[in-house]
This record gives sequence, structure tokens and C-alpha cells, in this order.
Amino acid sequence: MRTPTQHAGNHSRKDPYRDQVPEPPQTSDGRRLRGQRTRALILARAVDLASAEGLGSLSLARLGAELQISKSGVSGHFASHEDLQLAVIGVAARLYTKRVAAPALAEPEGLPQLWTLCERWIEFMRSGELSGRSFFLTALVEYDARPGAVRDELVRLRVRWEDLFAGFLRDAERLGQLRPGADAGQLFFEIAAVITGATLDAQLRDDPKVFDRARAAVLERLRPLVMHPGALPSGFQSPSAQ
Amino acid sequence: MRTPTQHAGNHSRKDPYRDQVPEPPQTSDGRRLRGQRTRALILARAVDLASAEGLGSLSLARLGAELQISKSGVSGHFASHEDLQLAVIGVAARLYTKRVAAPALAEPEGLPQLWTLCERWIEFMRSGELSGRSFFLTALVEYDARPGAVRDELVRLRVRWEDLFAGFLRDAERLGQLRPGADAGQLFFEIAAVITGATLDAQLRDDPKVFDRARAAVLERLRPLVMHPGALPSGFQSPSAQ
Repeated sequence: MRTPTQHAGNHSRKDPYRDQVPEPPQTSDGRRLRGQRTRALILARAVDLASAEGLGSLSLARLGAELQISKSGVSGHFASHEDLQLAVIGVAARLYTKRVAAPALAEPEGLPQLWTLCERWIEFMRSGELSGRSFFLTALVEYDARPGAVRDELVRLRVRWEDLFAGFLRDAERLGQLRPGADAGQLFFEIAAVITGATLDAQLRDDPKVFDRARAAVLERLRPLVMHPGALPSGFQSPSAQ
Repeated sequence: MRTPTQHAGNHSRKDPYRDQVPEPPQTSDGRRLRGQRTRALILARAVDLASAEGLGSLSLARLGAELQISKSGVSGHFASHEDLQLAVIGVAARLYTKRVAAPALAEPEGLPQLWTLCERWIEFMRSGELSGRSFFLTALVEYDARPGAVRDELVRLRVRWEDLFAGFLRDAERLGQLRPGADAGQLFFEIAAVITGATLDAQLRDDPKVFDRARAAVLERLRPLVMHPGALPSGFQSPSAQ
């Protein structure tokens, strides 16, 4: 059995969350450092491509051609096509963490975390950073009916995202910021659906204003639960509140 | 300029909505009749494939192999790959009309039409008829950023679907069944998002009960607008109503 220290040597290969993270150089070996940079470069391009065209569209040959790296220079970093796909999912998940989950976690507990999670999620989608797409929507439509490691990882990340949301919700109830008894699963389902729907509509109609619709819808879901009306932005009036 | 009569000869090629529609044989020519049946058979299989794997996955060779028809026997029916894709979109649109829009139109004007549209849409998605998928979600994710005839047709159908919804909504307001002033665009956006979200979740988690969440969400959107509480099913309590 390997000790943790022995295992750490290939940790950056195994844990996709470490990709694209600025971290202190772990070696003075210049070639290894260049290798890490190449891998990060390949993955950054791959996440963008996969957001726009799907994980299935990724090929080592295409990535090599786009980045002017030999195909063997690309394939040296990934044991298989699936290994590349899982690494790309990891980079995308890390980006959602950085843009959405981390800013939410930096807020005071409870409702501020819950609302920041929703708002940052909307703004991340509005930013168009991932080819203007929801990386996970593209990936889910492509892989949700194909059993395997890719689908398993997408399900795991989806559950983790919902758990983060539900944790913030329960904190807000415990702290007396929200009325108790909300169905976290229903609320997450509705909020995720309108944010995903807005991402799809914005791309189809080339109209980022639809993200205002998503924001209004999320605020309308949360507002009846809030104990103090001022705890949420006044935001946009929703149709049924008019 | 062609007269309507002259044009009618290739009408079934031009108007995708006529595909898969049972209609009286327009000819006693057995070969032509067999040709129409073959075309309908190809399109029925193609809609299912496109729902599961995308319009891009369609190939004349694959369809021929699956249906045991020669590739030339398939290609004789479609001038191009795009022609096949547009015909498939037409068949899918026709199916949504048959399963969702037509039953809604058969209801009394206003709120019954509006609610039936929503309910039948949910139940059509729950039925799993199109490989358990939303044909249009798969197609939109694939084509919403690719300018061309396919994207144009998807946008046109989306607008037409929203117009149908908005028409029912305005009828219901005019008839005093709903409070006036609802933002039809916002309401359609939210309802479409939760139905699409449920279709995605049901496939990912292999759990059709998520359609109950969509139904509860739709009822909660409509309920505050309704003049007489009994006009909608009592349905499921939603989280913020608890």
C-alpha cells in the first residue's frame, strides 16, 4: 500500500481540480514545469471547445493543431480520450468553484451565501466566459444517457452543487433569515432550471437581457421565504407580483 | 410564377409539417406510395436518433443501415444532409403539435387552453416518446451558435411556441380568468425552463418524478394570476407555499 507521500507524486494527474490552479512550482526541473504549463494550456482550450461543441468533439489531434503542439505532445499528457474528458470536466468544475462557489463562501453565513451563489452563477453565465455556454448543459445533453465515467462524474458534480445550495439554505433557516420548511430540492430544481434556460435563450436569441429574467425568477422564488424584506435586493418585479 | 396548383406537386417535400401525417393517398401509383412510406419510416427513426444524439449524428448511411434500406434508397428522399435535418425538425414539430398544442386548442378558450398546453407539454416529456429527450433541447444546444437554415428554423419554431402560449394567456385575461398585466415573456421563459430542466434531470437521474416538480412549479407560477382558485388543479404544494 502506498503512503500518502508516495502517492502525491502523480497527484496532479489524478485530481482534476488541481488543473489550472496557480500553485508554487513543485520542482526545479524546467522540463517538468513546461510540461505542467502545456497541460494547463491544452485543458484551457479544451474546456472552451467542449462548452461550445461538446466533450465528444475533443480530439488530441485537433487540440494539437489549434495550439501548434504535436499530437504526441498532447497525447503525452492524457492516457486516453476519457482521461482528457475527465480532466476537462475537472477544469470546468474548478472554474465554477472560482467564479461562483468561492465568492459565495466568502459571504456571511446563510442567506448572503445563498443569494451570492445564485447571483454569481447568473453573472458567470452572462459573462460568456465559456464560449457563452453552460459547460455542464452541453456535457449533460451529450452524456446523460451514456453510462460511464464521464456521466458518473457529471452526476457527482451536480449532486455536490445541489448540496452546497441546500447547505446554505439550511444555514439561513437555522439563523432565522428564512422561514423554515422550504423544499430544498424543489427550490434548487427551479433555480437551476431558470439559470440554464437563460443561458440557452441568450445564445439562441443573442440577447443577454434574458439573464435579467432569470434573476427576477430567482428573487421571486426566494422572496416569500425571507423573514426581513430588505435581506434581498429589490431587483426586478416579476410578472405575478405586478 | 407558379400557380398554387403547379406548386402543390412537390409540396410534401417543401413543408415539413406534412411528414408523418396520415393523409389520403394522393396517387394510385404504388411505387410513389411506397416511396412516401419509406420517407416517413426514415424520418420517424431519424427524429428518435436526433433526440438522443443530436441532428449532427444523422447520416444517410447510418439510417439506411438501421432500416435495411440502401444508402441510395435513403438519399433519394433528401436532397442534402440539411434537407434531412429540416425534415426531421418538421416531424418533431408536428409531434409537439399533435401531443401538446392540438389537445390544448381543443379545450375551451383561455385558461383551460393555457393550462392544458403546460400539462400536456410536461406529460409529453414524461412519456419518453422521443428517446426520453427533449428533441428541441438537444437540437438547440447543438445548433444555437451555428448560423444557418437549421438554427433559423429552430428560432422560428421557438417563437411560434411562445406566441401560442402568449395568445392563450391574453385570451384568459380578456375573459376575466386571469388578472391582467402578466409579463407573458417572463412567464413563458420560466415555464419553458422548468419543463426543459425536468427533462434533463429525469434523464440524468433516471427519475421521472422530477416532472412532478415541474408541474408544481408551473402551477405556482399561474396560481397568483388566477381569479377563481378552483380554475386550476390543486396539484402539488410548492416550497414557498408551505
